Amino acid sequence: MPVITLLSDFGLADEYVGLMKGVILSINPFATIVDMTHHIDPQDLHQAAWIIHASFRYFPEGTVHIVVVDPGVGSDRAIIAFKHMGHRFVAPNNGVMTLVLDEAADVPVIRVDNQDFFLKSISRTFHGRDIFAPVGAHIAGGVAMENLGDPMPRKDLVRLDIEKPFVSKNAELVGAIIWIDRFGNLITNIDAAALDGFCRSFQQTCGVVIGTHTLIGISKSYAGQAAKSPLAIIGSRGYLEIAVNCGNARDYFNAGKGDRVRVVRM
Amino acid sequence: MPVITLLSDFGLADEYVGLMKGVILSINPFATIVDMTHHIDPQDLHQAAWIIHASFRYFPEGTVHIVVVDPGVGSDRAIIAFKHMGHRFVAPNNGVMTLVLDEAADVPVIRVDNQDFFLKSISRTFHGRDIFAPVGAHIAGGVAMENLGDPMPRKDLVRLDIEKPFVSKNAELVGAIIWIDRFGNLITNIDAAALDGFCRSFQQTCGVVIGTHTLIGISKSYAGQAAKSPLAIIGSRGYLEIAVNCGNARDYFNAGKGDRVRVVRM
Amino acid sequence: MPVITLLSDFGLADEYVGLMKGVILSINPFATIVDMTHHIDPQDLHQAAWIIHASFRYFPEGTVHIVVVDPGVGSDRAIIAFKHMGHRFVAPNNGVMTLVLDEAADVPVIRVDNQDFFLKSISRTFHGRDIFAPVGAHIAGGVAMENLGDPMPRKDLVRLDIEKPFVSKNAELVGAIIWIDRFGNLITNIDAAALDGFCRSFQQTCGVVIGTHTLIGISKSYAGQAAKSPLAIIGSRGYLEIAVNCGNARDYFNAGKGDRVRVVRM
Repeated sequence: MPVITLLSDFGLADEYVGLMKGVILSINPFATIVDMTHHIDPQDLHQAAWIIHASFRYFPEGTVHIVVVDPGVGSDRAIIAFKHMGHRFVAPNNGVMTLVLDEAADVPVIRVDNQDFFLKSISRTFHGRDIFAPVGAHIAGGVAMENLGDPMPRKDLVRLDIEKPFVSKNAELVGAIIWIDRFGNLITNIDAAALDGFCRSFQQTCGVVIGTHTLIGISKSYAGQAAKSPLAIIGSRGYLEIAVNCGNARDYFNAGKGDRVRVVRM
Repeated sequence: MPVITLLSDFGLADEYVGLMKGVILSINPFATIVDMTHHIDPQDLHQAAWIIHASFRYFPEGTVHIVVVDPGVGSDRAIIAFKHMGHRFVAPNNGVMTLVLDEAADVPVIRVDNQDFFLKSISRTFHGRDIFAPVGAHIAGGVAMENLGDPMPRKDLVRLDIEKPFVSKNAELVGAIIWIDRFGNLITNIDAAALDGFCRSFQQTCGVVIGTHTLIGISKSYAGQAAKSPLAIIGSRGYLEIAVNCGNARDYFNAGKGDRVRVVRM
Repeated sequence: MPVITLLSDFGLADEYVGLMKGVILSINPFATIVDMTHHIDPQDLHQAAWIIHASFRYFPEGTVHIVVVDPGVGSDRAIIAFKHMGHRFVAPNNGVMTLVLDEAADVPVIRVDNQDFFLKSISRTFHGRDIFAPVGAHIAGGVAMENLGDPMPRKDLVRLDIEKPFVSKNAELVGAIIWIDRFGNLITNIDAAALDGFCRSFQQTCGVVIGTHTLIGISKSYAGQAAKSPLAIIGSRGYLEIAVNCGNARDYFNAGKGDRVRVVRM
């Protein structure tokens, strides 16, 4: 019973995700298919790169992760496959795997071009259905990576320029909002280690600045603040988040993706 | 092949639901996981209490229902588990199980605190992934309730104050809209039994008042009215609903959750 | 492990789809259930007719497709079931199967009325849960079509009047937008064969007119145009689509469902 996850920007309004599942089950009737999410903003490779990296490790070893955020579909961009920590990945070579591949620095990466494992008729606009789904299903069914194509030199892998937090001349730790979730929580690119390194004893002495507001200290839980009060917290992905207890931080701060967040010593 | 249902306010835009499934399948690869819905309004315990009560009985006996509407995540609110009618439930002790527990008046309720059945690393903000999912997976896999923790006195269970319809001084049956579905149907808290008890022969003689409109009689089907005409009907959950045949009652009446609906004898 | 697909206008905000799955798994615990999509516009039979026809063939032979777009629920409209190309279908007799039945011109169509295969208690408003789900689960479990009811004369089948593209007096091929997907792609009712027949060597010499814009030629891929440029392309369903590379054609052209699209020789 192999697990296959799907991560895409397809949404659920159309039949696209359903068709990928139909193709997978036609090849591998025993697959258990899980939607990671299909609501990546259209063509937002950074979002997808970040989600797959933060998420894959919560699935069983052996899981096949199919990532289809693919603005270059139908062009000559390659399709890649590789193994990391017992997980298998299939994705376009457009940078969406940057964060996972940075971790998997030594693994061979296959350029997938063996059409035996594709659908027979390949459209120009929906490789999710015609290539990614069948390749993922075949991998889950035991087809070895080597059979999908030849290894690809690492230098040919497209990398995203992922913005990392940095320490400014004013000795502030400067990051940005990279995701806003359903609850309006503002998730930054500042991870717990970076925050901890910046503020030794950050629980008492850090301030988190967003716009003209400064939040004092890092909270232990949403409920640790009064209802409708804003707070900074290390979220479930291990990154600094700004939230409002029983409220919505996006609305509270009128914040958007890409907005700066600064951490200051107080 | 145990069934596990998930009911939450997580939405599907983020990867939260996907991660819960990854954790469940890591523990119990044979689980069949069904989304009840993840679009409970954020932190709306009343909605969730009502949906789990109306829904669980349509699943096979033995199903494990995981309910995560949990504004107090990370605080010291307890987590509870219990059996009722052959179904198993795991939820925060915040009142979300009020309607089911009213029905299950005599069952022991366990305070879940045995960390052997949690993920090893517990975040402060996402117990759905770190506690509810693994506990539910273990229950589905056969772990006995007694192993999860000790029974909890009934008096320690948090109860929601669920508004019930009442008969006013004017001899009207007064209820409220508690849910508006995708079609714009306005679902009230007046159940078929209450309606029937109020109006003996309600099919001819009841009027349903919303705002300044009075709907005469209870319809047998949407299609029993002309297209775009409003009607009152007993909906699929067994409650009085106001609908518009081939239309949208929310828009027609400009109605909102919490609005009063009155039943009058005519 | 039979596959069952669900196609509806229920959305995912309510528990309706979850309940259908609960009923199916109560009858057939081994079913693999796939959501085709639940975001058909409410009561839009044309959209659903088109999606089920374009989609079913990507699923394994033997799949049971349950289609519930059913504005006449609770009226005396019939429920039909039939086989085609090794697939099985259950749907209301309201025209939603028009395109599939046009293809399946010779198969017997059963009027489903054997209540042995329904839930015991049938609501007036949710036959998806009370009839379609259990009937589909029983078919997947091996119940023969003949046991569900008697064959129905073809003349009693409701047909939609599906608008086809036509050649106008000005010798233009005239079609319409019938779907707009998540990416804002405008999908027309002009299929590849009609387009090809109209413009012999259409790749150089066709113009696609939408509003006051004319797009020259049919592109081979989205990425074949500059970013944010509009293009015409044969999409993954085999129909002419208008797209914007890395952009949104609905916004670009301010287009809506039903808008005319014309193909002209240039």
